[in-house]
Amino acid sequence: MIEGHGNDLYRYGDKVKSDFSSNVAARRVPDALLAFLATQLETIATYPEPDSETLRNALGSRLHVDANQVFVANGSVEAFYTIAAAFRQSRSLVLIPSFAEYEDACRMHDHTIFYKSNEQLCEAGIVCPQLVWLGNPNNPDGRLYAAKEIEEQLLQNPDTVFVVDEAYGELCSGFESVIDLVNRFDNLIVVHSMTKQYVLPGLRLGYMVTSRSLAARLRSFSVPWAVNALAQKVGVYLINNEELYFRNKENTLRRSIELQKRFSALPGITVIPSPCNFFLLRTDGLEASVVKEKLLNDFGLLVRDASNFRGLDNHSIRISVQTEEENEKLFIAMEKMIGIRNQKSGSKSQDKSLTINN
Amino acid sequence: MIEGHGNDLYRYGDKVKSDFSSNVAARRVPDALLAFLATQLETIATYPEPDSETLRNALGSRLHVDANQVFVANGSVEAFYTIAAAFRQSRSLVLIPSFAEYEDACRMHDHTIFYKSNEQLCEAGIVCPQLVWLGNPNNPDGRLYAAKEIEEQLLQNPDTVFVVDEAYGELCSGFESVIDLVNRFDNLIVVHSMTKQYVLPGLRLGYMVTSRSLAARLRSFSVPWAVNALAQKVGVYLINNEELYFRNKENTLRRSIELQKRFSALPGITVIPSPCNFFLLRTDGLEASVVKEKLLNDFGLLVRDASNFRGLDNHSIRISVQTEEENEKLFIAMEKMIGIRNQKSGSKSQDKSLTINN
Repeated sequence: MIEGHGNDLYRYGDKVKSDFSSNVAARRVPDALLAFLATQLETIATYPEPDSETLRNALGSRLHVDANQVFVANGSVEAFYTIAAAFRQSRSLVLIPSFAEYEDACRMHDHTIFYKSNEQLCEAGIVCPQLVWLGNPNNPDGRLYAAKEIEEQLLQNPDTVFVVDEAYGELCSGFESVIDLVNRFDNLIVVHSMTKQYVLPGLRLGYMVTSRSLAARLRSFSVPWAVNALAQKVGVYLINNEELYFRNKENTLRRSIELQKRFSALPGITVIPSPCNFFLLRTDGLEASVVKEKLLNDFGLLVRDASNFRGLDNHSIRISVQTEEENEKLFIAMEKMIGIRNQKSGSKSQDKSLTINN
Repeated sequence: MIEGHGNDLYRYGDKVKSDFSSNVAARRVPDALLAFLATQLETIATYPEPDSETLRNALGSRLHVDANQVFVANGSVEAFYTIAAAFRQSRSLVLIPSFAEYEDACRMHDHTIFYKSNEQLCEAGIVCPQLVWLGNPNNPDGRLYAAKEIEEQLLQNPDTVFVVDEAYGELCSGFESVIDLVNRFDNLIVVHSMTKQYVLPGLRLGYMVTSRSLAARLRSFSVPWAVNALAQKVGVYLINNEELYFRNKENTLRRSIELQKRFSALPGITVIPSPCNFFLLRTDGLEASVVKEKLLNDFGLLVRDASNFRGLDNHSIRISVQTEEENEKLFIAMEKMIGIRNQKSGSKSQDKSLTINN
C-alpha cells in the first residue's frame, strides 16, 4: 500500500540525534562490509541474476535445504506480498499487534482477514484459516513463540499454511528458528531479513524458505530481477564472512532488559516485557504522538509512535535500544517530560497518569 | 515468473569478451556516477523512503506532472507487475514480438491475453481490450510509434488503458515520448527506465507516470520500500546532473545503422531495420541457438537468441551495438561462421540458407 507505516526517520533529517524508532541492530554497518561494497560498484553495470541463483545456492547450503526451496526477496516485505499474491483470496489469520505489512499484503490480494491476539496461537485453527501470519519474535511487542509451539500448530492444522516472520530472530534472546521444519512440513513458509543484524535496511535484502511443494506455487508469483546486484553480492559475502555476525547481541539485550526495568519504575509508564532489542511501553496519561513530538523537538530523540499497530491504542510507543549513552539520554528525557526530575527524590508520584512538564 | 528471459550474461562469466545481448547503452557507467555512489554507501544503514518521495518530487518537476502521478519502481519490470495487478483479470492486448514480461505479468494476474503484430496498433481497439501493452521503441525489433499514432488510439479508445514502455527511448533516433499526454488523457500509463542510458541495470530503477485518476489505482497496488536507498539517491543525482546524459547517442545509432547495412549484405541474413541501438536479424539456414553458442565458444561474443520472443521463430537474433572495434569483431565472426571469409571475394553465395563453416 506504499504507506510505509512507521520508519519515518527520513522525514526529520538532522533533527534526530538518536534514533530509537527502527528495530535494526544498535551498531554501525560493519566497516569490512562497506569496504567490500565499495569494490562491487561496477556490478551495477550488468543485470543482476533474475532469481538470485548464486545467493540462493549459498543460502541453501547454509540452511541445509535445496536451493529451489529458497527465495531471495527485495527485503522481507516483498516476500509478504509474494505470499499474499500466491494465496490470493485466502482466509488469513493475523496475530496482532504485528507488522502492518502482513495485513496490507493480504488486503492487496483480497484475503478475508481475521485478527487474534498474538497470545492465542494455540487457537489458530479455530477460524479455519488458510494462512496464519505471525512474527517470531513479534514486532512490536517482542513476543516469542517456542519452536515446539509452532511445530504443534503445523501438525494440528495441516491445511493451514503458517507464515513465520523471523526477521528479528538474531536480535532476541531465546529465539528458536523453525527453518529446519520446512523439510518435515508442507505448510510452512519462514521469512528472514538479511539486513537487521548488519544494519543494511537501505539495501533491501531478505529471503524465504519453504517446502518443495509450496516452492512451486511461490515461484509463479515471484518477479524477476527484483533483487539488485549489490544486495545479491552482499548477501553472498555475509554468508561467507561469519565474523561479521552481530557478536554484540548479548550486550544489546542486556541493555534492553535494563532499560525496560528502569522505565517500569517510572510512574504512568507500563512496559511490555520483551526478550528483544526492542520493546513496547504504554504512557498511560499521555498520547504517544505527543510524547514522540516532544522527545523529537526538545531532545532530538526519535521513538516509534506505535498507535497505528492494530490492537494497540494511542498510548503505545516502541523503543529500540541503542548505546548505553543514548539509552541514558532517552531515559532522562522521559523523566524530565513527566516531571520526575523536578520532584524531590523519593517523592515519586503514585498517580499513574502523566502530565507533560512544560 | 522469475524466468528472466534472455540477459544471461551472468551465466558465462569470463567467457564473454563482448556482450551484444543486453540493450543498455554501449558506454561505461559514468565515472562521476560511480564516484557519487561511493559517497552514498552509508545510506544503506537506514530505511529508504517507502515511496521514494524525494525522487518522485524531482521527477514530477522535471516532467511537469504532479509528484503523485509518478511512481518510482524497482526497475521498470516491477512497474509492469504493479500495473498487471492493479488491472487484474483484464482483457489485455500485447503487441508482439515484445518484452516477455508484459505477458508474464498479465498471466500472473489472470488477464485474458490477446496478441497482435506490433504493426497493427491502429487495430488495437478491435478486440475491445481493457489494456494495450506496447514498447516504444519496441524491444526486440526497434519498432517506433509516432506520438500522434498513440494519441489517436488514446482518443479512439477511451475505455482502453495504454501501457507505453519507453525504456529504450533514449537509445533510439526519432523517438517521441508521450509522457506529456498523461495530463490530457485518463487512459495512459508511461513506463520508463532510468538505467538503460546510464548503464545501471544492476541497481534497479525505473518509474511510471500516469493521470491523476489512474494514479490512485496504481498506488493501492504498490509495495512499500521497493526501491533501495542507493537507487533513490542515484535517481535524484541523475536528474540534477544533466551533463551525464548519454551524449554519444548519435554515434551509437550511426554504428547501429552501419552494422545493420553490413549484415544485410551477408547471404542468408535478413536484418529488420531499426532506428535503435539494437536490431533483429534472421539467420535463415541456421538456428539462433547454434549461432549464439558458436559465437560464444569460438569468439567470446554474446548475442541474444531471440527465439523465445513470442511471434519470432528460432532463427532470430538480437544484436545491441557496441564499440566500433567490437562490432567489427562480431561482423568478422559472423562472416567466418557462414564461410564468406573462405570464399573468393566477389563469389558471394547466392544461396540464402547458411551452413556452419567448421
